[in-house]
Amino acid sequence: MKKVKTGLIGFGTVGTGVVKTLAGKGAFIKKKRGVAVEIVRIADKDLRRKRPVKVPRSKLTTDVNKILNDPAIDIVVELIGGIQPAKKFVMKALKAGKHVVTANKALLANSGKEIFGLARKKGVTVRFEASVGGGIPVIKALSEDFAANTIQAIYGIINGTSNYILSKMEEDGESFKSALKSAQDLGIAERNPLLDINGMDSAHKLAILTLLGFGRYVDVKKIFVEGIQNIELRDIRYAKQWGYSIKLLAIAKEDGGRLDVRVHPTLLSSKHLLAGVRGAQNAIYIKGDMIGESLLYGEGAGQKATSSAVVSDIVDIAESVAVGKALEMPNMNFDSGIRGMKEIGKVKSRYYIRFMAVDKPGVLAAISGILARFKISISSVTQKERHKEHAVPIVMLTHDAVEQDLKKALSIIYRLNAIAGKPVTIRMMR
Amino acid sequence: MKKVKTGLIGFGTVGTGVVKTLAGKGAFIKKKRGVAVEIVRIADKDLRRKRPVKVPRSKLTTDVNKILNDPAIDIVVELIGGIQPAKKFVMKALKAGKHVVTANKALLANSGKEIFGLARKKGVTVRFEASVGGGIPVIKALSEDFAANTIQAIYGIINGTSNYILSKMEEDGESFKSALKSAQDLGIAERNPLLDINGMDSAHKLAILTLLGFGRYVDVKKIFVEGIQNIELRDIRYAKQWGYSIKLLAIAKEDGGRLDVRVHPTLLSSKHLLAGVRGAQNAIYIKGDMIGESLLYGEGAGQKATSSAVVSDIVDIAESVAVGKALEMPNMNFDSGIRGMKEIGKVKSRYYIRFMAVDKPGVLAAISGILARFKISISSVTQKERHKEHAVPIVMLTHDAVEQDLKKALSIIYRLNAIAGKPVTIRMMR
Repeated sequence: MKKVKTGLIGFGTVGTGVVKTLAGKGAFIKKKRGVAVEIVRIADKDLRRKRPVKVPRSKLTTDVNKILNDPAIDIVVELIGGIQPAKKFVMKALKAGKHVVTANKALLANSGKEIFGLARKKGVTVRFEASVGGGIPVIKALSEDFAANTIQAIYGIINGTSNYILSKMEEDGESFKSALKSAQDLGIAERNPLLDINGMDSAHKLAILTLLGFGRYVDVKKIFVEGIQNIELRDIRYAKQWGYSIKLLAIAKEDGGRLDVRVHPTLLSSKHLLAGVRGAQNAIYIKGDMIGESLLYGEGAGQKATSSAVVSDIVDIAESVAVGKALEMPNMNFDSGIRGMKEIGKVKSRYYIRFMAVDKPGVLAAISGILARFKISISSVTQKERHKEHAVPIVMLTHDAVEQDLKKALSIIYRLNAIAGKPVTIRMMR
Repeated sequence: MKKVKTGLIGFGTVGTGVVKTLAGKGAFIKKKRGVAVEIVRIADKDLRRKRPVKVPRSKLTTDVNKILNDPAIDIVVELIGGIQPAKKFVMKALKAGKHVVTANKALLANSGKEIFGLARKKGVTVRFEASVGGGIPVIKALSEDFAANTIQAIYGIINGTSNYILSKMEEDGESFKSALKSAQDLGIAERNPLLDINGMDSAHKLAILTLLGFGRYVDVKKIFVEGIQNIELRDIRYAKQWGYSIKLLAIAKEDGGRLDVRVHPTLLSSKHLLAGVRGAQNAIYIKGDMIGESLLYGEGAGQKATSSAVVSDIVDIAESVAVGKALEMPNMNFDSGIRGMKEIGKVKSRYYIRFMAVDKPGVLAAISGILARFKISISSVTQKERHKEHAVPIVMLTHDAVEQDLKKALSIIYRLNAIAGKPVTIRMMR
């Protein structure tokens, strides 16, 4: 049996997990799948750091070219993350006719077109199951299992940190700050959690899912992104009273021939399967014309789950390399019937709105009058407390409204004397 | 581009769906995956029946040998179901060096060893994504995505009819009979729903999942199977009051080096993701040492979802056929460390028990005394109503108990004068 030679760039948490897995389970995998994978070289800037896995010194290098220029290496595994120098390494590997496995969502979201294009030109494969949803097989499901489907919608909870924080707030009544701190203490959130809580991590992953589902490269900068940093405990509580949970959703859906792609906190019915996704777990809900409604749920991060996905990518490629035939890269940029992007201003949605208002007669009448002028109708409304001196929250759910109409209405309402502070708006899942 | 030639045996509901999909979406699939699939021949006993898809008369035949003996055909799709003559056709196709796609769970559960063995010997592939969970990509997840995992447990809701009936009873308060009738009226249940409600359909599917997850061929006849036919509405109600749903679960898990495989109605916490699986939907919960907890959810049956899975299998094989290299069948019979089967009598579980008892002082003391003798302790108990003349239900949840101990205790309790009728027991998910 031919051993398929693999080079690993990046010997951090996931890299260590991959090395450990192949060392401990190589024989198990070989028995199951009939292929032997050997990591012949590992490149990392820092070779001094202690790692919980034993690797012969001769396999370690600080020079990635020892991998990229080695004709014996068939598969390059890129696990350094970030755009550069990862991109340079990946492009060089592809140019050299090597297959690539990567977990790098930022890289693929930003440079997928170049990378996949080059892979197809060179007749090699890029696999990236670990880039979205950790151990959840969503990449393969979209590219292979659901290949015959016209995908209609993808809704993802694909940032574990945000979901952990929102779950903690909802279940334990913690403030955003305190929930974030507990996520950091548990190692779920990084010390700098900005990309997680501001929604950008979800946007990177969403760009990848959108490509697989709808055949369109979406410029990440053009995705409408709103994070969870402004979600207050009381909004979670009010939503819960009406039977809703607030989740950070990454959404890509077809709407009248256009592609509606966005990331934002969203109220969804507590009965929806996605509402049951708690803690740092991830889930992706996919609607297709043949499969109907589908949900894939699991651990979205962590050394083990991510390594599991990376190793399965390596083994898939190794299988075809072992029999001497390269897998072909699917055509990512297919025509799914989408004709352009939906602007966020034109998106129709139901809304949760919280106004802070002085408790005077006529305030609610004024608010609802202005909303009505923009054809926005209210489905539920509650005035939460009654303190004469202070502003009181007026909380409402609307029926479907066009985003730009709502914005205009709110800017007028904001100027009312009785309104204290900017209204809080959270979109609802239709 | 080479067109990969496919022959279809069985032109029923799913067969029609496959033909329709390839006719309507062939170009779409070709663009995405770079492969063209042509159905060159369709065999069915009955060619007169009207089908909602147009096929040239010349492609239709009542003689399967026109497919099995045609050297131009690379892939045989078997969609007739049942063990014979499907088995004969599949074996003949494999012997002729053809790849096989099938949705036939009964066939694979009963003759998987022979079929997969022959495929490996002939260097061809058998794909069967549609055999379990319809459009849910569980077969590929277990065989490829989770390949590096030691699977610890699989819990499946894999019979849509049973789940529909139990959901209907729980949500709408319908009796078993009335829920079954509505499932039949909706076309979810067949006119003869025996294999669905007695658990055998789940057992067939479970045998396939067990093979993929644990590398063991399990004799279906040796799987402990209990269906939902004896579940009463009141048990669903009592369970709900304690925060549990009753679901028909197919379970395969490792327990002390042994494989515990069974199908039965099960109480599971309403907070468990599987409890949220309503109606005819299916879901498979998989626990692995690397991925942690994973759930795959979707439509488990129906023409479209099943055709989606069959077509994805065909396309996967066609891709490798088109480039001239056969995919190799993975080794199904790998060593996962399992040493024998767990007998049902030795299984430890929590239990829901309902006794019908005459409402006299001392009855509960007698019951709990006998249970205690067998080291079975009660975690909750309720006596439901009080009618002097009639038997009243005493409902309890136990802590962990060994099945054979419980059985002995119950047979003694059954003989008490105050006990009317056989106690009802339902296992709980640990």
